[in-house]
Amino acid sequence: MIVVMGRDCSDEQIDEITKRIKEWGFDVNLSKGERKTVIGVIGQQKEEVKSSLEAFPYVEKVVSVSQPFKLVSRDFQQEDSIIDIGHTQIGGEELILMVGPCAVENEQILIDTAKVARETGCQLLRGGAYKPRSSPYSFQGLGEEGLKLLKNVKDKKGLSVISEVMDKEQVNLVKDYVDILQIGTRNMQNFNLLKAVGKQEKPVLLKRGMSSTIEEWLMAAEYIMAEGNFNVILCERGIRTFETATRNTLDLSAVPVVKSKSHLPVVVDPSHGVGKSEFVSSMSKAAVAAGADGLLIEVHPSPENAISDGPQSLTFDGLRKLVNELRELAPVVGKKF
Amino acid sequence: MIVVMGRDCSDEQIDEITKRIKEWGFDVNLSKGERKTVIGVIGQQKEEVKSSLEAFPYVEKVVSVSQPFKLVSRDFQQEDSIIDIGHTQIGGEELILMVGPCAVENEQILIDTAKVARETGCQLLRGGAYKPRSSPYSFQGLGEEGLKLLKNVKDKKGLSVISEVMDKEQVNLVKDYVDILQIGTRNMQNFNLLKAVGKQEKPVLLKRGMSSTIEEWLMAAEYIMAEGNFNVILCERGIRTFETATRNTLDLSAVPVVKSKSHLPVVVDPSHGVGKSEFVSSMSKAAVAAGADGLLIEVHPSPENAISDGPQSLTFDGLRKLVNELRELAPVVGKKF
Amino acid sequence: MIVVMGRDCSDEQIDEITKRIKEWGFDVNLSKGERKTVIGVIGQQKEEVKSSLEAFPYVEKVVSVSQPFKLVSRDFQQEDSIIDIGHTQIGGEELILMVGPCAVENEQILIDTAKVARETGCQLLRGGAYKPRSSPYSFQGLGEEGLKLLKNVKDKKGLSVISEVMDKEQVNLVKDYVDILQIGTRNMQNFNLLKAVGKQEKPVLLKRGMSSTIEEWLMAAEYIMAEGNFNVILCERGIRTFETATRNTLDLSAVPVVKSKSHLPVVVDPSHGVGKSEFVSSMSKAAVAAGADGLLIEVHPSPENAISDGPQSLTFDGLRKLVNELRELAPVVGKKF
Amino acid sequence: MIVVMGRDCSDEQIDEITKRIKEWGFDVNLSKGERKTVIGVIGQQKEEVKSSLEAFPYVEKVVSVSQPFKLVSRDFQQEDSIIDIGHTQIGGEELILMVGPCAVENEQILIDTAKVARETGCQLLRGGAYKPRSSPYSFQGLGEEGLKLLKNVKDKKGLSVISEVMDKEQVNLVKDYVDILQIGTRNMQNFNLLKAVGKQEKPVLLKRGMSSTIEEWLMAAEYIMAEGNFNVILCERGIRTFETATRNTLDLSAVPVVKSKSHLPVVVDPSHGVGKSEFVSSMSKAAVAAGADGLLIEVHPSPENAISDGPQSLTFDGLRKLVNELRELAPVVGKKF
Repeated sequence: MIVVMGRDCSDEQIDEITKRIKEWGFDVNLSKGERKTVIGVIGQQKEEVKSSLEAFPYVEKVVSVSQPFKLVSRDFQQEDSIIDIGHTQIGGEELILMVGPCAVENEQILIDTAKVARETGCQLLRGGAYKPRSSPYSFQGLGEEGLKLLKNVKDKKGLSVISEVMDKEQVNLVKDYVDILQIGTRNMQNFNLLKAVGKQEKPVLLKRGMSSTIEEWLMAAEYIMAEGNFNVILCERGIRTFETATRNTLDLSAVPVVKSKSHLPVVVDPSHGVGKSEFVSSMSKAAVAAGADGLLIEVHPSPENAISDGPQSLTFDGLRKLVNELRELAPVVGKKF
Repeated sequence: MIVVMGRDCSDEQIDEITKRIKEWGFDVNLSKGERKTVIGVIGQQKEEVKSSLEAFPYVEKVVSVSQPFKLVSRDFQQEDSIIDIGHTQIGGEELILMVGPCAVENEQILIDTAKVARETGCQLLRGGAYKPRSSPYSFQGLGEEGLKLLKNVKDKKGLSVISEVMDKEQVNLVKDYVDILQIGTRNMQNFNLLKAVGKQEKPVLLKRGMSSTIEEWLMAAEYIMAEGNFNVILCERGIRTFETATRNTLDLSAVPVVKSKSHLPVVVDPSHGVGKSEFVSSMSKAAVAAGADGLLIEVHPSPENAISDGPQSLTFDGLRKLVNELRELAPVVGKKF
Repeated sequence: MIVVMGRDCSDEQIDEITKRIKEWGFDVNLSKGERKTVIGVIGQQKEEVKSSLEAFPYVEKVVSVSQPFKLVSRDFQQEDSIIDIGHTQIGGEELILMVGPCAVENEQILIDTAKVARETGCQLLRGGAYKPRSSPYSFQGLGEEGLKLLKNVKDKKGLSVISEVMDKEQVNLVKDYVDILQIGTRNMQNFNLLKAVGKQEKPVLLKRGMSSTIEEWLMAAEYIMAEGNFNVILCERGIRTFETATRNTLDLSAVPVVKSKSHLPVVVDPSHGVGKSEFVSSMSKAAVAAGADGLLIEVHPSPENAISDGPQSLTFDGLRKLVNELRELAPVVGKKF
Repeated sequence: MIVVMGRDCSDEQIDEITKRIKEWGFDVNLSKGERKTVIGVIGQQKEEVKSSLEAFPYVEKVVSVSQPFKLVSRDFQQEDSIIDIGHTQIGGEELILMVGPCAVENEQILIDTAKVARETGCQLLRGGAYKPRSSPYSFQGLGEEGLKLLKNVKDKKGLSVISEVMDKEQVNLVKDYVDILQIGTRNMQNFNLLKAVGKQEKPVLLKRGMSSTIEEWLMAAEYIMAEGNFNVILCERGIRTFETATRNTLDLSAVPVVKSKSHLPVVVDPSHGVGKSEFVSSMSKAAVAAGADGLLIEVHPSPENAISDGPQSLTFDGLRKLVNELRELAPVVGKKF
């Protein structure tokens, strides 16, 4: 059973509730976040307990959930979550496009990309400052310098920005520069990092682990929500299979499956999914038709010179063409753009 | 190098060409089909050979192809193949829907389904008479009786029909009843069966093996075409991965990948792809948005009573709703329905 | 429930039993094989039915099995199956080595290989006469000519031989030349072929499908046994995964898993499992340590000139070295060689 | 090109070398570890550069390596690495067994397990104090309290101990209690954690990511070595595939593959590989026969009461039986125990 405390509850009120739960013979799992305090009640429970807890005025919600993921579940919240991300919202009617280079390389590229993003109506700029690279000898990202460049462009161009955080120590730094913190596929089960982003307020985009089941992915989201941050966006980015014609196998069925199990928004990253720019447009349209709330797309002014992931990046013209197609497609599947 | 002979060439002309190729020091791979005769020239070739062969009046085409699949390749034929299937064509502008029960169970179900198919504008009726089942103790299909039921309904309702052939001995029988022969996922590399369907005229729908790479799938299509039957339709139906939330993982990126490598039409079977009816609509729309030429969808008047694959079958109302949505979607992605 | 009839029962006796079962309200699945007649009783059964059936003198055995595979199951037969294969037996104490080239290329290679096989104590010679190749333009095997070569060498050298059958039409031909019929990985779910080899007497080596679960593999064996041929040998040969350092991923845990679920012998094909000769010895030893009853190993006098699968073939010296090591290893894990 | 500096080189000497390399027009990647300083020379290099660098007296070694992994490669070091781990060494002739419960639960279990470990000749005690669990509501380990219990038992019983570190902040703490730091499968590409354990002296056991290729695994080891810690032990623990009869698919072919590409020791964890105790013995023997340097085995006094991973834990009697079998097997495959 999960008890969500009201936003303005005091520490004394939390103590009172936990004391009472323990008196009834249950164990308690307490997570005090910046935004929400969540109390897990552990042990075999009866219906009376739920009623008793609901009677407390500063308790917002009490939910029994049979699945291993609780807060993430549609049983916990029937209606779709709609999450504020900088200048816009994700999970509602609007289709959200997050575009930009794989890595922040220099200011000019960001400015040029931001211009095209504004021109085409894309709402967010993406770019990695900390880069998880399979070789220790590869470019590891510009670090804080890259975050500053992102923030500058954000301020100048009025776009929201998203960037990856690799380590729990980076959380406090990165969250001051960006609108969404991204957890990469390799860190989907870095549980201490999940707890760290769960303890702060900024929305978190959680990429699916490249060999994670949908259930494991939802459990990873649960780690974040259990710490009190309910602003989680899920991102399908392709899973690892035997097929080599594409970089990964984009599992678009994850979109309707997640929508049926959870209230959280889902976006799709077709760039990592297929790994080749020529297939990105088709899969972007397919993702939107499957019900995705947004797309995360790699775009670069000259993909052939990109420091990383050039082969899967759209050119500016490629992006313009895709956006035109999405503008026609979105209303047919119930989205605005 | 591949030499395609003109349709009306005589045996003497074929002999003359093969004799000449051998004189030049090459090996020959000869396939005489009902519709086309194809001569493979094996060995390291120079450009002159190509010119010499093209000079023969009864040679239709000579193509050098660097990829392992030749006749299947876009290098062999630039424009999309458009294939006649009963009352309609596949691979052109029209979106093709093939609907019906997994197995032919009885005539009433076929008649009822055919009625809904006509009403909604679906062009083909599907239904298995020979069923590959993982247990020897499960229902193995009605056999020829099932084919007769299909043919009856076809004649009454004016729909084309498609059914599976499991064995090279069944080919001659099945082709007299249906408009398209289906090769199932378990038989994608049953090479003798591929040769057998390549030796006759009826179009063949070739399902991707559940753990086949796209290249292996195209090589399987090559087996059919190398025997002279160029009417091959590819069907993506999900691949085997670690994910268990869906029956298979529908690899929609296979659609644009195949379209870039081959001129053959591609359809998608979302029913086997996801295995749960509640996700079939989303994935049908995604497939069409990805560029599929058609869909193969399991439909049953009462899925809960279906002998096989009930959980993944749409009801009639489910089909009506989906068709309405596809009718809006198709024109946005360049298809008519 | 499964009823196995005594070897000498008459058709009348079979009719009597099936009639009785139907009178009790059950469906019947009847398989008359050359060696055994097996009657499946379909429907919800009570313990009395079993007793009644056991009372018939010409009924050998009646078994209730809860798993989807019945005859294959350890519940059906507690003790290990030991199968006669030409000059020896498999599934007992003796470790069985089946060695030879991937494809039968010519007589000399077979003779030379047979000599080394005899010298080292290997019991069987392997070689493909019908070859399933992913390209229609590749060497497809010598066909019956290859079988004759195998038979010749067998007669001269006193080795048993094993060769693949790809098609149900080939069964009658191939079984006259060889001691074991091999079903390849691509045909593991070619159900009509399974039924055909189930209807004859020769032992069948059933390779695991490259993406088959162990349960599907045992169900495929059930298809053979349900037709009356109980002489089935299972062969693990690697499954398809994302790893590319080896041709397949050899799943040695399949050996103890199968041994716990089934009474059938299990052999391992490390050559296809790893695809590189340098790793074949290590994996051969590992297979024997895991409990395999035998090994199927590709050996070629000059692997660099082999028509197919050269890179994974041991040289004669490689085989000699491996056999010496296995001779030491076998007794430590309860096998004789 | 990789330059390894002598152990006693001064900061001035390092500066001199890097300055010289830069003068020649190359980029430098400098890693100063506690034990070794490694300088990566980045850019297209000629043979003269190597000779010039080798001429410096305080340079230990200069190696050109064509593979993406450098220090890890057999090209970098021909002979097997032998690594000191507490009271013994790994990678040499001795077979190393690391046994114990999945999680440290209480002192009594550790003491009892240590007793059996000593009695049977196992060299290390394992036990997790920090546990990565897929649910935030599951037992997360005893933390430092668990490390203290491990250390106590180590001091009393004279065994070495190994435990997992999940986070770079834990590294300094954990290394004071244990002989080997373990990196779990979910953290194989937690690059900041890899760098952190690379900067300290204690040996590191690096589990293969559950969906990592062998090359990615070796690149992860390269991250550790590039920071100067050359004491890396690789651990195969099963990869994720479609098979569900076992928890993972233990990829024993990884053992000979890694041995051919790298000089690092390799151990195998059959407990996670198969996930069921009944198959652990077979796979332990198979691992040793494949060439593993050691085994990591879960053992628990009463598996049915274990807080985590009970179903895959051996009982004490199971361990005794297995050790007896390994004692016979080891000498046959060139190991001592």
